[in-house]
Amino acid sequence: MFKSEKEFIHWLRDYAPATGRSLRLGIGDDTALIAASPGCDILLKADLSVEGVHFDREFHPPRAIGHRALARSLSDVAAMGGVPRFALISLAIPRGTRTEWLNELLRGVFELAARFRVAIVGGDTSIVPGRAALDAIIVGEIPKGRAIRRSGARPGDLIYVSGVLGYSALGFEILRSGGRTKPSPQSARRRDRRTADVDQAALEAHLYPKPRLALGRFLREKRLSTALIDVSDGLSSDLARLCEASGTGAVLWASAIPAPETAGRSQEGQDNPRSQGRRLDLALHGGEDYELLFTVRPDRAAKLPGKVGRVPLHRIGEVRGEAGVRIVDSHGKEASLKPRGWDHFKPKGGL
Amino acid sequence: MFKSEKEFIHWLRDYAPATGRSLRLGIGDDTALIAASPGCDILLKADLSVEGVHFDREFHPPRAIGHRALARSLSDVAAMGGVPRFALISLAIPRGTRTEWLNELLRGVFELAARFRVAIVGGDTSIVPGRAALDAIIVGEIPKGRAIRRSGARPGDLIYVSGVLGYSALGFEILRSGGRTKPSPQSARRRDRRTADVDQAALEAHLYPKPRLALGRFLREKRLSTALIDVSDGLSSDLARLCEASGTGAVLWASAIPAPETAGRSQEGQDNPRSQGRRLDLALHGGEDYELLFTVRPDRAAKLPGKVGRVPLHRIGEVRGEAGVRIVDSHGKEASLKPRGWDHFKPKGGL
Repeated sequence: MFKSEKEFIHWLRDYAPATGRSLRLGIGDDTALIAASPGCDILLKADLSVEGVHFDREFHPPRAIGHRALARSLSDVAAMGGVPRFALISLAIPRGTRTEWLNELLRGVFELAARFRVAIVGGDTSIVPGRAALDAIIVGEIPKGRAIRRSGARPGDLIYVSGVLGYSALGFEILRSGGRTKPSPQSARRRDRRTADVDQAALEAHLYPKPRLALGRFLREKRLSTALIDVSDGLSSDLARLCEASGTGAVLWASAIPAPETAGRSQEGQDNPRSQGRRLDLALHGGEDYELLFTVRPDRAAKLPGKVGRVPLHRIGEVRGEAGVRIVDSHGKEASLKPRGWDHFKPKGGL
Repeated sequence: MFKSEKEFIHWLRDYAPATGRSLRLGIGDDTALIAASPGCDILLKADLSVEGVHFDREFHPPRAIGHRALARSLSDVAAMGGVPRFALISLAIPRGTRTEWLNELLRGVFELAARFRVAIVGGDTSIVPGRAALDAIIVGEIPKGRAIRRSGARPGDLIYVSGVLGYSALGFEILRSGGRTKPSPQSARRRDRRTADVDQAALEAHLYPKPRLALGRFLREKRLSTALIDVSDGLSSDLARLCEASGTGAVLWASAIPAPETAGRSQEGQDNPRSQGRRLDLALHGGEDYELLFTVRPDRAAKLPGKVGRVPLHRIGEVRGEAGVRIVDSHGKEASLKPRGWDHFKPKGGL
């Protein structure tokens, strides 16, 4: 363990990424000091991650805890179409924490920050008697008046989502069930290989989510999106938020929602209705995918590519005038879709 | 208790101070959106307050917990000579917390924010299984290049401090000992009255500290100060930090340090050496006073008034070339002064 706060701050000063011409003063004075870029507004977001709520030391390696905490707030900047610039990290470290654990956690933060050229400019650290917590605060920039809000969706707009939804929730299930599936007989080898790939993708999505900053920026630069939010708590909850902010409703097409391949894990056939329902549940309510959910005017939809970078975009529904989110199944049957994603005031089972 | 995160966020949106022409988008989207003032740099600071470390529900009323948390980061802005503009508050709320307790805590935050025209623009909230915590993040502004750093002190500069040091630590002692002193015989009535006044001042200083924003701004505008820091962890620790950053040492004059009147409480005469030592200990190592400690070039010292607003300024020592902080007692005897204030990595007894 670091012997004093001073020793820890010196260590931070040496190892935290701190590049950028706009950084005037980083860790070590009363406050950090930065310059705003001319013509830009400033984006601010804090995301608090608490042991036993957002992460669990039993399942989450410390590097993933740090990565996930920063990814959450980077994703919020992506969801405005902004560029992240600076971060502050406040840390509550349980007494007796091993230095290696803390270093790995910070490595998770620093590596992700460096990947997006985000300078760590400050924060606060305290040794606490209770659980670990970290608050990741992001300062981003965006050209004046160009932030993409949640509130701009209009009836008739098409709804898109990036990537695949539900992988993170599946990954967490795998972690909780103790990791990979057991070795299986020769006859099932091929399905197993596919299962192993899905498991790997799900674990990766859960432990090291990728904030979609390039996509958010693309949507802003091309002026393609009328409303934008990140899928942090689950599609059903985050779409409801976008609709509420826009004063609209929406309909989702169940068969168009990109869901993880789970057939192998559930040991059921891919066309089995329970497995289908399971996949859809993960995609609708899973949360922590950090994909982007956005709306596009129908006359602009042809401008939207199938992928931005390597990230595929899927058209999954349409904005409606009437309040409420509804979902149409593959037989054309429509039903109401309640927000059943993560609510920080009503934690679900597990974490 | 609020029934959902949505309900809580709606409540926050209605009650949190959110004034200011530069606020483009407050609570309720993926991030807050603000405009930087032309010609200004941005100050950033996060201060994490954790139950059992920075506050204790047994001693601290919830309004004071909120006030103290925000005061800590406001004080850091004062210590740069800046103007606070926006705040984000991240809250970990223990499961089962009463709504009244939470409302009072937020009232403490909001009232102090409103007093300094700081808009609460966001944050994060989570219901947690463990202890309460709040991270107060401040965004301030300062004219470009005019921030007063810790590092500008030069040998020969005079050292000043505002207000009285040690009241907060004394206040915490009173709280822990169960409040006021017991009723006393007629003969001691007059001393008791004085004691009661000191107690009241100490409790007030501990529970509702006043960040010295007007003083910080005054020092910046008048260009009077070469280095500036706030006394958050104790004079002995914070002066050592200022000296280290400036590459200097310092000498303090014990008899010039403004300390609380404690004679009444300790039931000893005012001139009793133990009582004198006790007063000095509180002033040197007490911490949480949030007064400003600053250095002034000797040829500028005559420009410094005795008070700024109602806050008195005291000349307490001198910057030296040789490293290390030393203290001269009333008999002219000089000794080394070790930093014995608060270190977040080595919590002292009590909290």
